[in-house]
Amino acid sequence: MSNTSAPAPAPASAAPVTVLGLGAMGQALATAFLTAGHPTTVWNRTPDKADPLVALGAVRAGDVTAAVAASPLVIACILDYASVYETLAPATGALAGRTLVNLTTGTPAEAREAAEWAASHGFAYLDGGIMAVPPGIGTEQAFILYSGEREVFDAHREVLERLGAAHFAGAEPGLAALLDIALLSGMYGLFSGVFHALALADSANVPAAEFVPLLSSWIGAMATAVPHMAHQVETGDYADGVVSNIGMQAAAFGNLLRASEEQGVRPDLFTALHSLMQERVAGGHGAEDLTGVVELLRNRA
Amino acid sequence: MSNTSAPAPAPASAAPVTVLGLGAMGQALATAFLTAGHPTTVWNRTPDKADPLVALGAVRAGDVTAAVAASPLVIACILDYASVYETLAPATGALAGRTLVNLTTGTPAEAREAAEWAASHGFAYLDGGIMAVPPGIGTEQAFILYSGEREVFDAHREVLERLGAAHFAGAEPGLAALLDIALLSGMYGLFSGVFHALALADSANVPAAEFVPLLSSWIGAMATAVPHMAHQVETGDYADGVVSNIGMQAAAFGNLLRASEEQGVRPDLFTALHSLMQERVAGGHGAEDLTGVVELLRNRA
Ligand SMILES: NC(=O)c1ccc[n+]([C@@H]2O[C@H](COP(=O)([O-])OP(=O)(O)OC[C@H]3O[C@@H](n4cnc5c(N)ncnc54)[C@H](OP(=O)(O)O)[C@@H]3O)[C@@H](O)[C@H]2O)c1
Ligand SMILES: NC(=O)c1ccc[n+]([C@@H]2O[C@H](COP(=O)([O-])OP(=O)(O)OC[C@H]3O[C@@H](n4cnc5c(N)ncnc54)[C@H](OP(=O)(O)O)[C@@H]3O)[C@@H](O)[C@H]2O)c1
Repeated sequence: MSNTSAPAPAPASAAPVTVLGLGAMGQALATAFLTAGHPTTVWNRTPDKADPLVALGAVRAGDVTAAVAASPLVIACILDYASVYETLAPATGALAGRTLVNLTTGTPAEAREAAEWAASHGFAYLDGGIMAVPPGIGTEQAFILYSGEREVFDAHREVLERLGAAHFAGAEPGLAALLDIALLSGMYGLFSGVFHALALADSANVPAAEFVPLLSSWIGAMATAVPHMAHQVETGDYADGVVSNIGMQAAAFGNLLRASEEQGVRPDLFTALHSLMQERVAGGHGAEDLTGVVELLRNRA
Repeated sequence: MSNTSAPAPAPASAAPVTVLGLGAMGQALATAFLTAGHPTTVWNRTPDKADPLVALGAVRAGDVTAAVAASPLVIACILDYASVYETLAPATGALAGRTLVNLTTGTPAEAREAAEWAASHGFAYLDGGIMAVPPGIGTEQAFILYSGEREVFDAHREVLERLGAAHFAGAEPGLAALLDIALLSGMYGLFSGVFHALALADSANVPAAEFVPLLSSWIGAMATAVPHMAHQVETGDYADGVVSNIGMQAAAFGNLLRASEEQGVRPDLFTALHSLMQERVAGGHGAEDLTGVVELLRNRA
């Protein structure tokens, strides 16, 4: 609009981005940047995986150092942390002064170690956890957790939002990986319960059309207990407002196991919970709430 | 209103009801009937548990036979099926021509056996599964599953709705118990995931106020997969529209277990799922969806 002497900085919408790793997820990330109009440089160990992205306008870098040099913001999404180090070893010099956002899945300890490695080489680092499958990237279904310096996150937030909602998990570099894995464990628990429930319904030929509405509404109703459970864990008080204590539930659990056996359904997904319940009761907490098993998981009880 | 010669039958709202067993649940059931204005007769092995109900207008029966004789509809809610038989052994004659609704928790096989016992003594029988805790009885949060003859259910439905929404699970007498246990297993799976997730969040001092909204919305989003999973089980086709196959998930599961170990969180609740995933992959189904573990639970794979 105005014609001042200093050029305006490029708007975030035109910020150049580099994507390293073009597996299923890396392809989805690069596509989202290209769709949003970002100059996008890509690199993959097996170069021809870049072909469809080049057709969409991406620049294929000849090597990792050239890929890193092309953009102030570098996104890595590779198999694991070992492959990230292997990939970036020749390019740490080129990374100096830039920002690496590592969306490779790992553990909190791996993320902390990577943040130290970045600091020792003089580049900014965010660790991320992608809570989406590749087709969800760039849609409102995706959300991505980030941890590291708040200023670094804020500086790149608008660009990162191209991939999905961006949630800042905190400055401690392991927090994104931690929350990622915590949410995944919530999902795998839910799915375990659903699988056992579907196996039982199937064993009695209950049609999906009948069982799904019951199961979905029941799970929705039970999920409303989450805030109370989280509060119990935070306060360490599992005796407050108990309606169905763990002693009663541990005893009634026998029905679930016996009925499963009668129906020919393997009890595998519930034997550990049953043991934890019994362990908690044996520890003198039978009159408290079921949530108290968290104390056992934390090795505190 | 009108003054015809034959007396109108008593409306369902005034139908007399008998409740056997006045533990936490039986008390709640009797209270709901009394609140709705039903003449209510009660009996409990330890008689003084009837005191608060008598204060609300209930009639205390001197023995089980008198309790049964007081109403055409008899509700039993006692510890287990063995205690139901023990309680009703002296009163099977009095039950003839009446309806017993057994809301005691048991397995599908126990329910089928009880239905045969009822038939052999000439009384109608519904088996039920209460999906509520005592404080929920009589509110819209409660729902109760029933199985047995449809006509028997229809005849008493209006009265039974005093306790909570009534869902007819089918004529096969074990179906209410089966769906009850299937729904409970869904709940216990959900809770297992939530407990592990809360243990991880706690291990990193993530405040509940931050973690709960993330976990709740994530669980809500993941629960939308239930209809697709149920469809896969019904068709036996686990290869259709796979975005994240079980082979990849089994490999990535190592992160969850390693991160838990690093954070000092016991992996107990997820070792069985991990084994089932590996078993499924070893069986040649690595490119299919996670839902395929249901085949293992059903001992079909
Ligand atoms: N897919 C999902 O649903 C999902 C969801 C959340 C997070 N993630 C995470 O995203 C990351 C990538 O997953 P993905 O689904 O894209 O996996 P993928 O399709 O299997 O692709 C793996 C990528 O890693 C590269 N790679 C492997 N070893 C390498 C090495 N030693 N050096 C350089 N590159 C190497 C591969 O390069 P080549 O092409 O040369 O083999 C490929 O680009 C993983 O950490 C995964 O956990 C995935
Ligand atoms: N509470 C819940 O959240 C809940 C939810 C769903 C289903 N249920 C089911 O409802 C049923 C009752 O549970 P509750 O919570 O009321 O249990 P409770 O508070 O422990 O009461 C147990 C009842 O069973 C009676 N009883 C035990 N053994 C007996 C025997 N041999 N003969 C006669 N009566 C006997 C007890 O009588 P005394 O008073 O003489 O000991 C008492 O009335 C159980 O099957 C339970 O699984 C409960």
